[in-house]
Amino acid sequence: MESVPTPSTALLPLVLEAYPKATHVTFFLLLLLACILIGHLFEKKSWLNESITSIAIGVFTGILILLTTRGQSSHILVFNEQLFFIYLLPPIIFNAGFQVKKKQFFRNFMTIILFGAFGSVISFVIISLGSLHLFKNLDVGFLDMQDYFALGAILTATDSVCTLQVLNQDETPLLYSLVFGEGVVNDATSVVLFNAIQQFDLSHITSTNAIQLAGSFLSLFLGSTLLGLAVGLLSAYIMKKLQFGRHSTYREIVMLILLAYLSYMIAEYWHLSGILSVFFCGIVMSHYTWHNVTESCRQISSHIFATLSFVAETLIFLYVGMDALDIEKWSFVRMSPGTSIGASSILLGLVLVGRGAFVFPLSFISNLTRKSDKDRIGFKQQVTIWWAGLMRGAVSVALAYNQFTMSGQNQIRGASMMITSTISIVLFTNLVFGLFTKSIVRIMVPRVNNTTYADFPTLESLSDPFLLDVDDDLESDMDGANMPRTNSCLLFLRFPTQCINHYWRKFDECFMRPVFGGSDTSLDPHTPENFP
Amino acid sequence: MESVPTPSTALLPLVLEAYPKATHVTFFLLLLLACILIGHLFEKKSWLNESITSIAIGVFTGILILLTTRGQSSHILVFNEQLFFIYLLPPIIFNAGFQVKKKQFFRNFMTIILFGAFGSVISFVIISLGSLHLFKNLDVGFLDMQDYFALGAILTATDSVCTLQVLNQDETPLLYSLVFGEGVVNDATSVVLFNAIQQFDLSHITSTNAIQLAGSFLSLFLGSTLLGLAVGLLSAYIMKKLQFGRHSTYREIVMLILLAYLSYMIAEYWHLSGILSVFFCGIVMSHYTWHNVTESCRQISSHIFATLSFVAETLIFLYVGMDALDIEKWSFVRMSPGTSIGASSILLGLVLVGRGAFVFPLSFISNLTRKSDKDRIGFKQQVTIWWAGLMRGAVSVALAYNQFTMSGQNQIRGASMMITSTISIVLFTNLVFGLFTKSIVRIMVPRVNNTTYADFPTLESLSDPFLLDVDDDLESDMDGANMPRTNSCLLFLRFPTQCINHYWRKFDECFMRPVFGGSDTSLDPHTPENFP
Repeated sequence: MESVPTPSTALLPLVLEAYPKATHVTFFLLLLLACILIGHLFEKKSWLNESITSIAIGVFTGILILLTTRGQSSHILVFNEQLFFIYLLPPIIFNAGFQVKKKQFFRNFMTIILFGAFGSVISFVIISLGSLHLFKNLDVGFLDMQDYFALGAILTATDSVCTLQVLNQDETPLLYSLVFGEGVVNDATSVVLFNAIQQFDLSHITSTNAIQLAGSFLSLFLGSTLLGLAVGLLSAYIMKKLQFGRHSTYREIVMLILLAYLSYMIAEYWHLSGILSVFFCGIVMSHYTWHNVTESCRQISSHIFATLSFVAETLIFLYVGMDALDIEKWSFVRMSPGTSIGASSILLGLVLVGRGAFVFPLSFISNLTRKSDKDRIGFKQQVTIWWAGLMRGAVSVALAYNQFTMSGQNQIRGASMMITSTISIVLFTNLVFGLFTKSIVRIMVPRVNNTTYADFPTLESLSDPFLLDVDDDLESDMDGANMPRTNSCLLFLRFPTQCINHYWRKFDECFMRPVFGGSDTSLDPHTPENFP
Repeated sequence: MESVPTPSTALLPLVLEAYPKATHVTFFLLLLLACILIGHLFEKKSWLNESITSIAIGVFTGILILLTTRGQSSHILVFNEQLFFIYLLPPIIFNAGFQVKKKQFFRNFMTIILFGAFGSVISFVIISLGSLHLFKNLDVGFLDMQDYFALGAILTATDSVCTLQVLNQDETPLLYSLVFGEGVVNDATSVVLFNAIQQFDLSHITSTNAIQLAGSFLSLFLGSTLLGLAVGLLSAYIMKKLQFGRHSTYREIVMLILLAYLSYMIAEYWHLSGILSVFFCGIVMSHYTWHNVTESCRQISSHIFATLSFVAETLIFLYVGMDALDIEKWSFVRMSPGTSIGASSILLGLVLVGRGAFVFPLSFISNLTRKSDKDRIGFKQQVTIWWAGLMRGAVSVALAYNQFTMSGQNQIRGASMMITSTISIVLFTNLVFGLFTKSIVRIMVPRVNNTTYADFPTLESLSDPFLLDVDDDLESDMDGANMPRTNSCLLFLRFPTQCINHYWRKFDECFMRPVFGGSDTSLDPHTPENFP
């Protein structure tokens, strides 16, 4: 007779009983308001960024709740990985892709891949094997081989969200594109590593395993990227053909948001990297789709993307701060505070060493391919890259919860210890590295003016005419005419990146823009009058 | 030893197992895209509105799922009242308040209250007692006294969202403000009625009970309104003093959205009417706050409000359409289709009669206070008001779920029957009344031009100088000077509304605008340069 579905915990204005959810939402609204107000009032303090403000407010609120509930509970909402990966992460990464300076990003593409793929593997191996070796002398509880490897992957995840907070694209374009791009590629590496942990026996790596792993990474990386590009191009084509702006701006805006979100969700659905996918979708949308919508939609949509990203970032840091004080998780720490501090310190040390172990050698390798001193990544810049990518954030917390809350009874102690250690590292790196990164960037890298950032040494020489971006004013002056076609084969061998850039530009102008729209089309597609 | 919290069903890019939530979200994204695409392509069909498109797509999808799962299930997500009342309803009502023509709304304020409060009670009594009487001959299963009264409240709830879909503020300003305003006030009445159902014995209404009920309604109405006004004024003051736009537009936008949402959530938290509260907050924000933000924030925020409202509306109708086919609920209908059709028809008839029973008499009473023929609500307009408010929507569905899914085992049959009847009425009224309302409005009410809608007979004469809105250009010409102060007492008795309007304008100019900002302040507060 159970034919009527059981009700969920309903919030109805008509049922005047317990309102648990209304309380939570009201509370979070007030916290968000506090974050924005305080962030606004302390705007001019250079050492303070919004992530630190939000984390501090979160921790402070956690303490308040802990005191008012007399130690019963310290949080109102438990950190929810689903909320994080479905709702909070996509707008941040999409906005980053949408706003990224494409020229800078693609110029450093090979170095980004080098850092994001090989660098992450190096860091992963060092943290995994290091903790396996060093934890032997500490009584951290039972952890199996898989847990140690998971720990490596968790603490390797550079937090792109934190990077966006402390690095400025206009002030330090090279650092931004390297560290942020690395963080995006890093996600694909993490998926492959986590898969590997579950599928392969990593304690006995054979050459077959290694090839399988590399193939898995490649297919994941290519699949996610192609999906993002495809959805981006589809959005450009739809917006160009259907002219939603004829009737209403809001339909255009909703279409853009839905399609961008779709690229993330389909990637997740197909077990690809949603982060990679939505990032490339953002790049394509800013290059093509954005030029096919009405003027008002263009203004509004970029503000909406920035606003959504800002709210999601604030919520994440608030969440991490509040959740850090969950007393249940700290019960084992209270029993053996020394062990816990030891484990956290060891892991923090391994994070520092693991990052150093790939930033400096890979920068050295990257520099070997550069011709002039001007192109090379200097030592001071290497230190800044190392430092700026040390922060761990919500991604690490979400992964730690996922790995260590499903452990069996005999692993409870070790698992609990690993969660608190991860939270400690997240709080420590955000507060300490977050507080000083802006100052360190200012000391280590000479102040770069927004308008003259071309003087900043980049990986390839900016003087090369092939590298001029399609959006540059100079483009028309040297379009094609200066290209010495006679020795193009020799040129390709000497300047492969520049040649690819040149041919891509030709292809973009002759085929892509006429089909998918873009800034240079003679017929302005976004005025309704031009549409038949 | 359960010290580690149990994980929720996590969606992680790193856990490549079942992805139930990713499927749902992807699916809903695709459905939303379909709604917008089809809505765009059929834009010019006057009989088709977006709610019908969304419901049709929802029902169609439900049938598809039913066929592919071989009759096992017809929906992916069950209609969730919490989702509806916390996330979908607030943006719609806020946007309505933000965009409402304040002059028209406040001119008809007393009639709106008359319809929304007394009208709803009349309709509630007729539907409750009518169903109690007429269901005796039908085998609908056991329903207690409370169920019948709940049914009255459920089917009295005019759906403001549906009204917004079929009535156009610019084309029929009087109808819009009356029917929509009634729907908003109606919500407060429903809260009181539902409270009454749970607290009082409605079968024996005494004069004490009646006074208590009236007092309860008054306090709820005033409390919700004052809360909305207070939050609105707070937002105006904060935006004027703190000048968020100095640094970033997105902070301004987020502040506006958060404060508007806060007015709804605090009302729900204090067991008031969130709908009333957020509606008045919207009115205050458009009158004061909106003038205190930067120009770009103004443009973007009104688009964001409209966009959020549009998405929420589409989702609600999609939801109602998909959920209508839940086979579990229809199992009793299949057993006795005749009874089910009979019950639905009776309830539909009662809805028609119940609305007629207050629209015509109350219009007559309202007309008695009007001096000239021009001011009166004509018979054709009365019919249109009656017809336009017949649609029942997501509010009714949410209330029906809330009342009838908590019934005991002996009430399962009756409760299940009432849920399917409510859904039938929602589908029927939306499809039939929704399809014809635009045509009926066009036939019954002469076409009104956007610019000349002042010719449309309003409840009070537009020729009266006191009624000129504060935004009118003419205002400065007759500001104060034309007001015959000598016989103001006599004037107040003859034109109470006009006098209140006049003194409100004075108060607004001398006290409110200097404190809370507004369109006429000499110092333009939203240019950062003017701020110290």
